[in-house]
Amino acid sequence: MAMFFNIFSLKNLLVLSLALNASLILRGLYEKDSEVIDGGLSVEKQEDTLMTTARVLSEARATQRARPSMHSSSSTADSDGGDTIINLDHGDPTMYERFWQQAGDKSTIVIPGWQSMSYFSDAGSLCWFLEPDFAKEIIRLHKIVGNAVTEDRHIVVGTGSTQLYQAVLYALSPQDAVEPLSVVSAAPYYSSYPLITDCLKSGLYKWAGDAQSFNKEGPFIELVTSPNNPDGYARQSVVNKSGGILVHDLAYYWPQYTPIISAANHDIMLFTVSKSTGHAGMRIGWALVKDEEVAKKMVKFVELNTIGVSKDSQLRAAKVLQVVISSCQYPTSLGSLFDFSAHLMEERWSLLRAAVRQSGLFTLPEFSPGSCSFLNKSFAPQPGPVAYISDHS
Amino acid sequence: MAMFFNIFSLKNLLVLSLALNASLILRGLYEKDSEVIDGGLSVEKQEDTLMTTARVLSEARATQRARPSMHSSSSTADSDGGDTIINLDHGDPTMYERFWQQAGDKSTIVIPGWQSMSYFSDAGSLCWFLEPDFAKEIIRLHKIVGNAVTEDRHIVVGTGSTQLYQAVLYALSPQDAVEPLSVVSAAPYYSSYPLITDCLKSGLYKWAGDAQSFNKEGPFIELVTSPNNPDGYARQSVVNKSGGILVHDLAYYWPQYTPIISAANHDIMLFTVSKSTGHAGMRIGWALVKDEEVAKKMVKFVELNTIGVSKDSQLRAAKVLQVVISSCQYPTSLGSLFDFSAHLMEERWSLLRAAVRQSGLFTLPEFSPGSCSFLNKSFAPQPGPVAYISDHS
Repeated sequence: MAMFFNIFSLKNLLVLSLALNASLILRGLYEKDSEVIDGGLSVEKQEDTLMTTARVLSEARATQRARPSMHSSSSTADSDGGDTIINLDHGDPTMYERFWQQAGDKSTIVIPGWQSMSYFSDAGSLCWFLEPDFAKEIIRLHKIVGNAVTEDRHIVVGTGSTQLYQAVLYALSPQDAVEPLSVVSAAPYYSSYPLITDCLKSGLYKWAGDAQSFNKEGPFIELVTSPNNPDGYARQSVVNKSGGILVHDLAYYWPQYTPIISAANHDIMLFTVSKSTGHAGMRIGWALVKDEEVAKKMVKFVELNTIGVSKDSQLRAAKVLQVVISSCQYPTSLGSLFDFSAHLMEERWSLLRAAVRQSGLFTLPEFSPGSCSFLNKSFAPQPGPVAYISDHS
Repeated sequence: MAMFFNIFSLKNLLVLSLALNASLILRGLYEKDSEVIDGGLSVEKQEDTLMTTARVLSEARATQRARPSMHSSSSTADSDGGDTIINLDHGDPTMYERFWQQAGDKSTIVIPGWQSMSYFSDAGSLCWFLEPDFAKEIIRLHKIVGNAVTEDRHIVVGTGSTQLYQAVLYALSPQDAVEPLSVVSAAPYYSSYPLITDCLKSGLYKWAGDAQSFNKEGPFIELVTSPNNPDGYARQSVVNKSGGILVHDLAYYWPQYTPIISAANHDIMLFTVSKSTGHAGMRIGWALVKDEEVAKKMVKFVELNTIGVSKDSQLRAAKVLQVVISSCQYPTSLGSLFDFSAHLMEERWSLLRAAVRQSGLFTLPEFSPGSCSFLNKSFAPQPGPVAYISDHS
């Protein structure tokens, strides 16, 4: 996922907002010698690691803006070769692998060559390419976690929530409008949203920037990402005028990242397995949609864009969600997936905070704790793949 | 796949060009009593089947134009209930299931829960989300079939060739052009192409209709679908002017549909498993691309559109191609996949031709035979999921 860089040019304050897996920084800070970690991150040697990290972050920002490719990397190297190479371009949820290794065969999928050959998963249903087993597990998972209302909702599956975001824009934009519909979100927002929105220069919709300064007349779409990427804060709509349609990106509204306060009950909600279970390689997301016409148009978009969604990955996602649900009902020594991953995030944030405190160079945001109805305890948000770092130097 | 309807209003001639799986007509003609076939096709009762089929085709045309949904159906029913319901909206390659059943465990894929969690398949390569095993099998398959040159080509994987078609348009269109790039194809063309091209009203490119009457100045993209969908003919570029960039959709350039005359050697070639192996549910296609910059931009599009392509389906596609290749090297009682499916197509075309001849109502196109270097015999094209039917009534 390309990163979002937002620079507030207040005196003595440089804010680097990076799609930076906390693990990347932590490993960069604590691990020695040459190794490759996560999605190709190469840490060659550590000396004054935090200073180096700061410099790498600055250079990464410059590199990234010029070359926002998924596999770009930022590197530093000086004459004595005692430097660090860190690819800050993306996060990768491979840190959940250990849970899935311990889950063993229960989460293994077996697909014979003759299975799932048809285009269709459920020809008669609104979302004809949605595997019924996957739909069933989505509903069970939301019910057990309590993070979203599924009653009176249509489920639309997508090739990741990225495709569903585009499906939503297509569905909400009038076909015959004189000018493109404005799409806004409160800054700082996920860097890819403007890129995705404007990549084809659509006549249907157009990125219109920060929701907080949006004051154009007429209809618009406000994208509410909660918890927010990149800063991890819980969010609500900020545009205080009529004519707006809200789209809730709830990719991170899971107990490992933030306390589950109540079941989200919005008109359009987007989720993805990459953030909930860690299976980014599946490219599977889902939308819970109240309005039937909107859901139908989203289906139409996915039909035009990719003629449906991989059945193999949907079947695998169904199996994986089944194991997650069962881990909640009958926890093993690792606890449920959410116990395991919440613990992992807590540990990493604690190490990150200690390192940043020690350096005196950066600050990290402070979050207020909240009571999580799922984990049955109070804790502060511990955002997943992103960190928010201020350089006071 | 939505159908393409093209009406030539010559006196006494109505051409219905339908994305019509030959199996649908044949079963509609020969099978009795209520059943559901292929992708939800419901044949309730047969009487004067060919007459009914003719009427259904006309009504389907009207229905389709008003409601081009993937799961729309056309129906006819009169008071005595003695009529036929045929959904002519799509084809579905489930007819290859028997081959895969007989292939047995060799084509079964097993994916443990902890595998393929990362976004990345091959972080350092141009197409970072392409599974190396799948890439390897693509090259082996083209080599053994002899239908495309893979040397000096970059492989870009897509969520079906539909996504790759859009990736190509994105890659070939200048970002700063004053007006959208024209996209043309010789009529009759695949119905979905104009719909996909114009669905977001892109400022980068625009559908400009029939290539044969295209005479606008400036650069353009000509889409050459060979064998063509919907009529099955081999094709070459028809626009006789400079400034055109050719894109070859070779989805049907496999020995079950048409003789393999020589290895296609074009700059941009699109293929898909749905037509070659019958696995439409995987949503996997691939492009062979000569120019590195074009390939990079295609990768960028897939990154923005869906952040890569399902790893599960790519791994399964690799396994399936492996079995296809092995069936060519060591044929079983069914022969290779191509022997099996070529025989199936031959049988179905022979039944279709007999029925159409008997009716006197329709004509089917006649194809010239060609010598197939792969099957080592001469035969006439036997187009797959589409038929071309003329009503002389």
